[in-house]
Amino acid sequence: MTQEKAVIALFDRSRKTNDVQVGIGDDGAVLRDGTVLTVDTMVEGVHWDDKLTPEDVGWKLVAVNVSDLGAMGAKPAWALLAMALPSPLDMTWTERFREGLFEALNFYDLPLIGGDTVSGPTRTLTLTVGGKAAHPVLRSTGKPGDDVYITGELGLAAAGFLDPAPTPAARAALCRPTPPVRFGVALAESGLVTAMMDLSDGLREDLATLCRASSVGAEIDPAQVPGAADLAHRFSFGEDYQLLFTAPPDARSAVESLSRSQAVPIARIGRLTAGGPVRLLGASWPAPLYTHFPPGPR
Amino acid sequence: MTQEKAVIALFDRSRKTNDVQVGIGDDGAVLRDGTVLTVDTMVEGVHWDDKLTPEDVGWKLVAVNVSDLGAMGAKPAWALLAMALPSPLDMTWTERFREGLFEALNFYDLPLIGGDTVSGPTRTLTLTVGGKAAHPVLRSTGKPGDDVYITGELGLAAAGFLDPAPTPAARAALCRPTPPVRFGVALAESGLVTAMMDLSDGLREDLATLCRASSVGAEIDPAQVPGAADLAHRFSFGEDYQLLFTAPPDARSAVESLSRSQAVPIARIGRLTAGGPVRLLGASWPAPLYTHFPPGPR
Repeated sequence: MTQEKAVIALFDRSRKTNDVQVGIGDDGAVLRDGTVLTVDTMVEGVHWDDKLTPEDVGWKLVAVNVSDLGAMGAKPAWALLAMALPSPLDMTWTERFREGLFEALNFYDLPLIGGDTVSGPTRTLTLTVGGKAAHPVLRSTGKPGDDVYITGELGLAAAGFLDPAPTPAARAALCRPTPPVRFGVALAESGLVTAMMDLSDGLREDLATLCRASSVGAEIDPAQVPGAADLAHRFSFGEDYQLLFTAPPDARSAVESLSRSQAVPIARIGRLTAGGPVRLLGASWPAPLYTHFPPGPR
Repeated sequence: MTQEKAVIALFDRSRKTNDVQVGIGDDGAVLRDGTVLTVDTMVEGVHWDDKLTPEDVGWKLVAVNVSDLGAMGAKPAWALLAMALPSPLDMTWTERFREGLFEALNFYDLPLIGGDTVSGPTRTLTLTVGGKAAHPVLRSTGKPGDDVYITGELGLAAAGFLDPAPTPAARAALCRPTPPVRFGVALAESGLVTAMMDLSDGLREDLATLCRASSVGAEIDPAQVPGAADLAHRFSFGEDYQLLFTAPPDARSAVESLSRSQAVPIARIGRLTAGGPVRLLGASWPAPLYTHFPPGPR
């Protein structure tokens, strides 16, 4: 168990109340009225370094949060920003951060409705976002026999971070991710999908999380996973902010049709199994290149 | 203008949408459905030092947030916790923090429904809380001629922080504040109050904020303000987490009756005026002992 998971377990005393439908342990929490809530913190030197401009940091803070909402099938509705910033305040950095933040807030049509600003030795940025889901989709409801899909391609952000001279596309994937939020909402509202989450920690880790939550195993064909040639980049770095979702085989043509109509590319990469391991067919999962907690080489 | 206010102004581009009733600038944001949202960050070395045990920090993080909700007349409904914690993780500190946090969450009947845990060089704790208000009360709706009230007494937390050997009551005020949330909700639901906010920055600064928001002046009789003998402690330190509210003179007996039935002591300390300054009768406001941003001697 990672330290992050130990901490989550420590605080997971969520009492189910009349208002709360899903508590700790999914991309977001779900209230009975369909409100989905999520919060993400980014710390300078841990979650970003000089590769990101201040504008990129603002964009990414919004993107990683709306990614969680989209993965639950929730349309973003509002955001609250809490910032710890060193004193004296660096107004240039703060204004540049704001530009990127509002660019992403506008892109995802999300009003900033409040926040808190305090002094602190290290820039620490926390965004809380709320949204509404008519049919929230969880991680824990995948079924044996379901197909496993991803959106987009994987490993671009890894290349953006690890390559000494990344391509513009790789740099954009790392610095300006654009999670397919509307497609997540459309998938949820279609009723086609059984489970969904966003790919933030790499397919290796995120699929294991989904399978553990759903009490299933999985078989993935690496040849069907679009993206980086390097398997570790593709499976074990993270920061892709694409969607991982499951649907029964009889939904295939409807899922593909939704992908076309929304212009979001998808790939069917394997299937869920009744128990058993989460396997990569014909290969071993490459070791993680990056873990959130404690921080690795980043 | 303080740097904190400069930052708030920088990010105050809140677009009023169909969902948002009140955006940046009050204790909390208000959605059209009566949901009230607030977020507060506490940074080690800035918002607390060795005077607070880890349990106290957990308690206080909840208390300062529910104080904002109560001041809007909102009943707390859920909380999200985002933590940046140094690596390797200090499990003893984290478990003790959790104890105080859950003690306060239980005291205010507030379920913790999610969060985020990341690594960071300085303990930085952000709590987002949501609640519901049938009749949200703002800072900006005080009227000339209204009476000005506070709950409890002021300056105890100042003594807890500044005295070399504080009394147990002063220590508790600093380390374990118990904002009168239910009374705030009752005041809001009574329809008696015109404006309300919590006292976090000291009466001097908070009353000025309320008067600016309401476009009024005020006259306060210092002899009517219960609390510390030292005027600077009583008016210019903050961290009281009591309520500051206004109501028309014809509501006096009903307000006093509510105070008695809820067993929350109140004091009528002055009145709002049509414009003009925010005056302390027969005295000058003592200079601030503490400002949030940039951090002072703390």
